[in-house]
Amino acid sequence: MSKTIPYKIYLSEEEMPTTWYNLRADMKNKPAPLLNPQTLKPMSEKELEAVFCAELVKQELDNDTREFEIPREILDFYKMYRPAPLVRAYCLEEALKTPAKIYYKFEGNNTSGSHKLNSAIAQAYYAKNQGLKGVTTETGAGQWGTALSMACAFLGLDCKVYMVKISYEQKPFRREVMRTYGASVTPSPSRETEVGRRILDAHPGTNGSLGCAISEAVEKAVGTEGYRYVLGSVLNQVLLHQSVIGTETKIAMDKYGIHPDVIIGCAGGGSNLGGLIAPFMGEKLRGEADYRFVAVEPASCPSLTRGRFAYDFCDTGMVCPLAKMYTLGSDFIPSPNHAGGLRYHGMSPVLSQLYHDGYMEAVSYPQTDVFEAAERFARTEGILPAPESSHAIKAALDEAERCRETGEEKTILFGLTGTGYFDMYAYESFHDGKMTDFVPTDEDIEKSLSKLPKVEG
Amino acid sequence: MSKTIPYKIYLSEEEMPTTWYNLRADMKNKPAPLLNPQTLKPMSEKELEAVFCAELVKQELDNDTREFEIPREILDFYKMYRPAPLVRAYCLEEALKTPAKIYYKFEGNNTSGSHKLNSAIAQAYYAKNQGLKGVTTETGAGQWGTALSMACAFLGLDCKVYMVKISYEQKPFRREVMRTYGASVTPSPSRETEVGRRILDAHPGTNGSLGCAISEAVEKAVGTEGYRYVLGSVLNQVLLHQSVIGTETKIAMDKYGIHPDVIIGCAGGGSNLGGLIAPFMGEKLRGEADYRFVAVEPASCPSLTRGRFAYDFCDTGMVCPLAKMYTLGSDFIPSPNHAGGLRYHGMSPVLSQLYHDGYMEAVSYPQTDVFEAAERFARTEGILPAPESSHAIKAALDEAERCRETGEEKTILFGLTGTGYFDMYAYESFHDGKMTDFVPTDEDIEKSLSKLPKVEG
Repeated sequence: MSKTIPYKIYLSEEEMPTTWYNLRADMKNKPAPLLNPQTLKPMSEKELEAVFCAELVKQELDNDTREFEIPREILDFYKMYRPAPLVRAYCLEEALKTPAKIYYKFEGNNTSGSHKLNSAIAQAYYAKNQGLKGVTTETGAGQWGTALSMACAFLGLDCKVYMVKISYEQKPFRREVMRTYGASVTPSPSRETEVGRRILDAHPGTNGSLGCAISEAVEKAVGTEGYRYVLGSVLNQVLLHQSVIGTETKIAMDKYGIHPDVIIGCAGGGSNLGGLIAPFMGEKLRGEADYRFVAVEPASCPSLTRGRFAYDFCDTGMVCPLAKMYTLGSDFIPSPNHAGGLRYHGMSPVLSQLYHDGYMEAVSYPQTDVFEAAERFARTEGILPAPESSHAIKAALDEAERCRETGEEKTILFGLTGTGYFDMYAYESFHDGKMTDFVPTDEDIEKSLSKLPKVEG
Repeated sequence: MSKTIPYKIYLSEEEMPTTWYNLRADMKNKPAPLLNPQTLKPMSEKELEAVFCAELVKQELDNDTREFEIPREILDFYKMYRPAPLVRAYCLEEALKTPAKIYYKFEGNNTSGSHKLNSAIAQAYYAKNQGLKGVTTETGAGQWGTALSMACAFLGLDCKVYMVKISYEQKPFRREVMRTYGASVTPSPSRETEVGRRILDAHPGTNGSLGCAISEAVEKAVGTEGYRYVLGSVLNQVLLHQSVIGTETKIAMDKYGIHPDVIIGCAGGGSNLGGLIAPFMGEKLRGEADYRFVAVEPASCPSLTRGRFAYDFCDTGMVCPLAKMYTLGSDFIPSPNHAGGLRYHGMSPVLSQLYHDGYMEAVSYPQTDVFEAAERFARTEGILPAPESSHAIKAALDEAERCRETGEEKTILFGLTGTGYFDMYAYESFHDGKMTDFVPTDEDIEKSLSKLPKVEG
């Protein structure tokens, strides 16, 4: 029977989703509102519009509309790199000698190398539609910046990326991909912004940080006519756009009568996990079906497994709104883990609320275990996974190996968010036995949590 | 009408080809036989079997069998990364405002980043099937080595790659990908082989060369029990395996009633072009249909456009058999063009014969023109192309722009062989305006051609 399911399921254009699913509509406990960092009052639509595009603010604040129609132009762009294949991991199952059935949704078949493009094109589209000239953003390792550059190139929109200085210098490849797509890439801190100049004057030799790059990008957007700031994860709007991952997956699974018992995704800011689980979680919330959901995070940055559910700043510079989420404290500095995309102190408010309400589990792994899983996966399934994605692989392998012991024929689904082509230094350190694991102590975490802002709620 | 054709056509598993098509069966003038470098007599099956796997030698020598059944194990491996999509370049057409219809077959959606995997798995399979322990090969930039490592990892076969020393040191990324797949990668020249030691003693500081790496790989294979040598291009067997590209393309085009007027591919050793055009060329040879075929090569290494059709050594070390082909002389040292995969002095004997007999055209472009085309393509179609593939893009853009002028609604098909993720230094030099073009003088070419071996035929 099972061999009647192809190795890879590609939806036809007619089968592809035409709406984004808004998980918040089915949540009894809605995610808490963003707060103004000055007044600590909920951000109004108007306040948010100074930073974000108007249409995106509407999506951010709308906890009720269940389906959002995807504009035709975005659907056309999606057709350039979607559908993403749902892969039946026959080779991995055989290698593991597990009775489990393993599926993964592979989002790496595009030049940004990850799922980030799904939201980048949406955000760029609404910016263009509003008549804006351009958008600003920050990037660390560069996945989000690359995705945004591609979307902006397609729409003829200016794209200004503040890239953490040390990445700009030590990881020139993604910088060059962004330049190929016409983005202007500035090492941060720069002298282009007040906050950048202030930091440079105080710390002339600084390597920069994501927090500083965010502050520069926001300052530039707010201070430049015709520009807005865009962000690649955490926000409700981003999870909305990323629901296309889960909806495509569910259509493919329904077509072949597949019911996943457990759904696994890596979680940094939560955009991939939130997107992958959305329609399945919706069914669970509505009592129509049951699934287990597992968020996987690095042991070095364990916001769900060891953080606190509280209001906190989204950035280290404390210029962005506050969100109620699982957080390690905006002051928390994760060790230099190679999964750059998971080095975030907080977690999407939607996912945080669901986790808090008991709808989801979370686990964490040290990175050497993760790279070992990555290599096993690469050798059997061919795809070279990103370090971020490999967290989900590790959890899926563990689950499949438990099935081997118990004999359970579980169906496992995980999100393979991207490829590791730009992470070969990390693989090299793993091959050479030089990779180390850093797990923060309770004191480390308590220390940064002690500085959480005092907010009711 | 045309919009009824999807952006991307993926064959279903049932539609995928199950045979390789042997173009030689339909050629009136067969490609000339390989010659023994010592005796200058045609290589016998037995002689070839000292270097290559027995089954591959049969494929190499068989000019008559039209279809070869693809073994089940290879079909299963193909399912892991194939079908490759046939893409209708709607966005590019719109950007160019051309009445031409542009299609490309995209072979980059796998970790090797190119079409090379199609032959790597076949060669590894026959080696495994013969009961061998492992295979040896050489690699320059690393595409072929990566593909072979993936195939060997899958089959549990040992893989020994000699990588040109300067690439090993300056381009560590593909080296690490190969190590991820368990290959042993040795910088060449090494002290592991006689030829390596000889060269190291004579030139202690040498950077290595492809010619030397080939010689080391062949020596190692011939001198080690249970090992054979494998090669990623030029050979008849490789073109046979790569016919899967063209056959998949033709099935997809036939399904939608599309007839390409012109078919374009980049040409280094010829494996991609030979594979892409195979079934179309077959129809042309049998007088069933007509197509134009265009081979695109770098101006810095113009074997078809400026070389001679003659017997020549396949390697600079002169240890491999001689082939009758368009060649610039095995002594020819191409300038450091960024399209490493096209820096080969010769051309597949099959393609050489077809070009000689007037069935195919050839053009060449300087690399700055090629990178300009690459960037335009990336910005409209999203995919970041490999420098090699971008040669075909450049020719396709030129053809489409001619259509804009003449108003012709031609259907253009080109092969997009791979992605450029590991070529960002090249893109950087292009962005920074530091890329130069080097075109050999007539004297350069005459000089290396003057050293061609004296062989009848």
